[in-house]
Amino acid sequence: MSSEHKERLAALRGVLAAAGLDGFIIPRADEHLGEYVPDSAERLAFMTGFTGSAGLAVVLADRAAVWSDGRYVLQLAQQSDAALWERLHITEQKPEAWLREHAAGKRIGYDPWLVSADFLARFSGVELVPVDKNPVDEVWVDRPAPPLAPAVPYSVAYAGESSAAKRARLGAALREAGQDAAVISDPAGLAWLFNIRGTDVEFCPVALGFAILAADGTATLFMAPEKVSGALREHLGNEVAVVARDALPGALQALAGKVVRYDSATMPSWFKTTLEAAGAKVAAGDDPVALPRACKNEMEQAGARAAHLRDAVAMAKFLAWSAERLRTGEETEMSAAAHLLACREAGVLFKGESFPAITGAGEHGAIIHYRVSPESNRQIKPDEIYLIDSGGQYLDGTTDITRTLWTGPGAAPPKVKEHVTRVLAGMIALSQAVFPEGVAGAHLDALARGALWQAGLDYDHGTGHGVGSFLSVHEGPAGIARQAKPVPLQTGMILSNEPGYYLPGAYGIRMENLVLVQPAAFEGARKFLRFETLTLVPFDRALIDVSLLSPAALGWLNGYHARVWQEVGPLVDGPVRDWLEAACAAI
Amino acid sequence: MSSEHKERLAALRGVLAAAGLDGFIIPRADEHLGEYVPDSAERLAFMTGFTGSAGLAVVLADRAAVWSDGRYVLQLAQQSDAALWERLHITEQKPEAWLREHAAGKRIGYDPWLVSADFLARFSGVELVPVDKNPVDEVWVDRPAPPLAPAVPYSVAYAGESSAAKRARLGAALREAGQDAAVISDPAGLAWLFNIRGTDVEFCPVALGFAILAADGTATLFMAPEKVSGALREHLGNEVAVVARDALPGALQALAGKVVRYDSATMPSWFKTTLEAAGAKVAAGDDPVALPRACKNEMEQAGARAAHLRDAVAMAKFLAWSAERLRTGEETEMSAAAHLLACREAGVLFKGESFPAITGAGEHGAIIHYRVSPESNRQIKPDEIYLIDSGGQYLDGTTDITRTLWTGPGAAPPKVKEHVTRVLAGMIALSQAVFPEGVAGAHLDALARGALWQAGLDYDHGTGHGVGSFLSVHEGPAGIARQAKPVPLQTGMILSNEPGYYLPGAYGIRMENLVLVQPAAFEGARKFLRFETLTLVPFDRALIDVSLLSPAALGWLNGYHARVWQEVGPLVDGPVRDWLEAACAAI
Repeated sequence: MSSEHKERLAALRGVLAAAGLDGFIIPRADEHLGEYVPDSAERLAFMTGFTGSAGLAVVLADRAAVWSDGRYVLQLAQQSDAALWERLHITEQKPEAWLREHAAGKRIGYDPWLVSADFLARFSGVELVPVDKNPVDEVWVDRPAPPLAPAVPYSVAYAGESSAAKRARLGAALREAGQDAAVISDPAGLAWLFNIRGTDVEFCPVALGFAILAADGTATLFMAPEKVSGALREHLGNEVAVVARDALPGALQALAGKVVRYDSATMPSWFKTTLEAAGAKVAAGDDPVALPRACKNEMEQAGARAAHLRDAVAMAKFLAWSAERLRTGEETEMSAAAHLLACREAGVLFKGESFPAITGAGEHGAIIHYRVSPESNRQIKPDEIYLIDSGGQYLDGTTDITRTLWTGPGAAPPKVKEHVTRVLAGMIALSQAVFPEGVAGAHLDALARGALWQAGLDYDHGTGHGVGSFLSVHEGPAGIARQAKPVPLQTGMILSNEPGYYLPGAYGIRMENLVLVQPAAFEGARKFLRFETLTLVPFDRALIDVSLLSPAALGWLNGYHARVWQEVGPLVDGPVRDWLEAACAAI
Repeated sequence: MSSEHKERLAALRGVLAAAGLDGFIIPRADEHLGEYVPDSAERLAFMTGFTGSAGLAVVLADRAAVWSDGRYVLQLAQQSDAALWERLHITEQKPEAWLREHAAGKRIGYDPWLVSADFLARFSGVELVPVDKNPVDEVWVDRPAPPLAPAVPYSVAYAGESSAAKRARLGAALREAGQDAAVISDPAGLAWLFNIRGTDVEFCPVALGFAILAADGTATLFMAPEKVSGALREHLGNEVAVVARDALPGALQALAGKVVRYDSATMPSWFKTTLEAAGAKVAAGDDPVALPRACKNEMEQAGARAAHLRDAVAMAKFLAWSAERLRTGEETEMSAAAHLLACREAGVLFKGESFPAITGAGEHGAIIHYRVSPESNRQIKPDEIYLIDSGGQYLDGTTDITRTLWTGPGAAPPKVKEHVTRVLAGMIALSQAVFPEGVAGAHLDALARGALWQAGLDYDHGTGHGVGSFLSVHEGPAGIARQAKPVPLQTGMILSNEPGYYLPGAYGIRMENLVLVQPAAFEGARKFLRFETLTLVPFDRALIDVSLLSPAALGWLNGYHARVWQEVGPLVDGPVRDWLEAACAAI
């Protein structure tokens, strides 16, 4: 493996030298700058061996480095060859500083399709040169073809609003902002705007492509012709021109003199420079789809409730099975996750997992983004903690749920129960929040941490992320985290509520429900919001220390379990029903 | 009064025309851009009649407008003449938009000493012209002389750190940032940096002046010679050059080629343009004094505790008196405030009020920044709510406390008690907060509002502001508010904790303690912080509905009252002691 990567690195250096470049930047990104990328864009993994979901490499003639973040320190060290690559932590030793130190006066190439304008702006003092053709692709002779899965219509019975209505709404917003058009480069944005879905990447049902939305509500969709059937053209209607991706440069040329919205944080820098070269006026602004997409309409909300109910049935089956099987020591992290997937597959409208399940027994649960592999897979032992974070893509909604279980048959130690109960108390406190319009997730994050903080404990991740409607399980622009851009919460947003606690080398705890922002009814002019909990799955009472819950929190928990029994109980039978009834009994 | 303002406006227009200006901007500000300004700088009040603490006017040849914010809508309408001025709300109809509409192509003057660079940056599209001499001063023939009160040394026994040590510390920070010098324009910054105090403005014990701090820890203090005694020069020592304010332009000239730190939000734009004209490199950065000043050292913390204990004695005397007097109907808002001032004056080290007391009976309490006047003063009636927000400047610390009282003799209505108890529950929740380093007040603000939010109620002001050490009662950079710049809380910061509830036309409720940020002791590497409550004054139990307090909140309240009795009890006698004992009994 190492000799392979050594040869690739040497070959790339040859290509760079021939192109008159002293170096090249290789981000883990495709042309849409999103979380899930197709195999054809896994250039970082091809060059370095590192397969984490966030990373970057820089190759110079005499040295090379690869970066990732705190989640991937170990994996980066295991997968990349220290003889070829310096392995660096992205916040402790920044690529821009490394380049300023090692590449002064040198010409460093980058692919303008794979980086945002904001990313480039960080590299002041370094001469960065855009390339027309990515030099890694010249080395990568057996590079997979880009995915060409068909894009398919997404019924308005699920989407709740026609593409025409969405385009008219967003077009009006552009006109109001004095803008003539907007770039759309996020495939989940296309999916929402045109009511289409696809299977180009794992876990997120999008079709890759780009679009230009005009202020009159018409649009041009740039998508490989192989992906576009006659039925899809009919679905899109005559206000949406469908052209091949190759038509993009020409289309931008035609925007000369126009004001075009561009999101410098999330869109490839290619759009900015190409628009500017064409004589268009680039207007910096948020991706116009992001906020409307986050606010789910009534139909999407109903779909989310229905999907969560079916997901709850699958989880109930899985948890009833777990209650019997995990104490035997005969199951593994992979076998348990496989069983959960089978439970989901037995339901209707299920289209696949919404992300790779995090199935962590004991000390593996403390690795926040643990992804099991045949090498890491281990037995789930009696009397330990098992954490399972998983989700489903259903035609009517996307789910994401984490439960932490005690495998038994013995009792959980008091300290473990204390940690679990503090996490649960935080999840409940956030679930019970009522707050006026204008409040953002950043202002509520402390609620989910309070019970841990009182004991000097905390967790190093955000409390919540947005979740799409049969779209990405990680969706902006709102979140529940101190670091998040403070986007006020609005009716219809679906967010995760997932505090945790991690004791490295021992165990990890996380409790995750999805919640839907709803108006709270009060007299008076001031508008308030609250959370409706979508997830309907009991918490393992073997891990709860009731003495640590306030009366209000215990009331919430018992009310929640009663609701789970009421809504899910009629959908299960036999031993699953018996298990659920016991799991939902009042504490 | 109106004819007077009409004449002044006409005269100003004459001066502007003669100077070739089409208009002029008049902010409510002096050259230090702070909250409290000397009479000599009250140009906005002179021109418009409006005496609020925040406002702005613009005079054009054919129209004029005056702005303030939501606190002052009524007062602005009462004090300014509608025939002369459009009266506008500063966030609803912004001055920059008004100028773009009415002053296109016109030359609008401004005094570069009275606005920040950030303020000017908002006026893109308007031609703004700095003036050398403020044209209002040419009209204002009997303008008061600028204050020339002596600056006096502030003992290191109170300050806790010598000026030399402070200057060395801040100089090192400048060197680390690659900066040669920094502008200091906030008089409270001078006061802290040089350990001096003064009496130039009301309520805040500062001496007006400016300084340039050099990266080697030496400084130049620009201050009127009349203010500087031989003793002060001796106190300042030979690392601080003291020169007249007139020397400022020359001193900036001498900074040619140097990197000079300038805070574009809080410092006059004059410094920026003069430095740039001199060939200095202006480095944008926060006022270097603000953060170090906010983190009180051990001596300042001890001083704050001592000042709060004496303030608590004064408050106990006042509240014992109030318990007897307010039910009689014989006291007024002014007589009660006067009695409280007399109670404070009876103590030692008291130097005056830290702000004009807000003394509001009934509906006046709902006016958040109510300032009583002989015209507005009203009887305090039996069986109503009375709110008193006041504070003292003591040589060893600054206090700020609000209590809400029921005058009696009848019982308070249940709804009133509910509102008061929800406010109190919020104040207690914030008092009990424990949080890791890195958390800012913006992230804790929701804790103080939670009990109100649960009932669909809220308050339209921040929860807390920083408080100085025998300095400004409103001090940056940290605060507890969603709007606040998220400055992480640090050990030694003193902040107010003051949720409220206001029912317009009926009553206002506010509960305010000052809290001191302290380390929280836990095992483990992660560092946590907590609040030590400084204020030691009981809450009126006639207004508390115990059934609405959680066991934890009631426990805090009883513990607090027990502590008040233990610490303040030994310092009072007679009826005050009897009153305090009853007020502090367990509920």
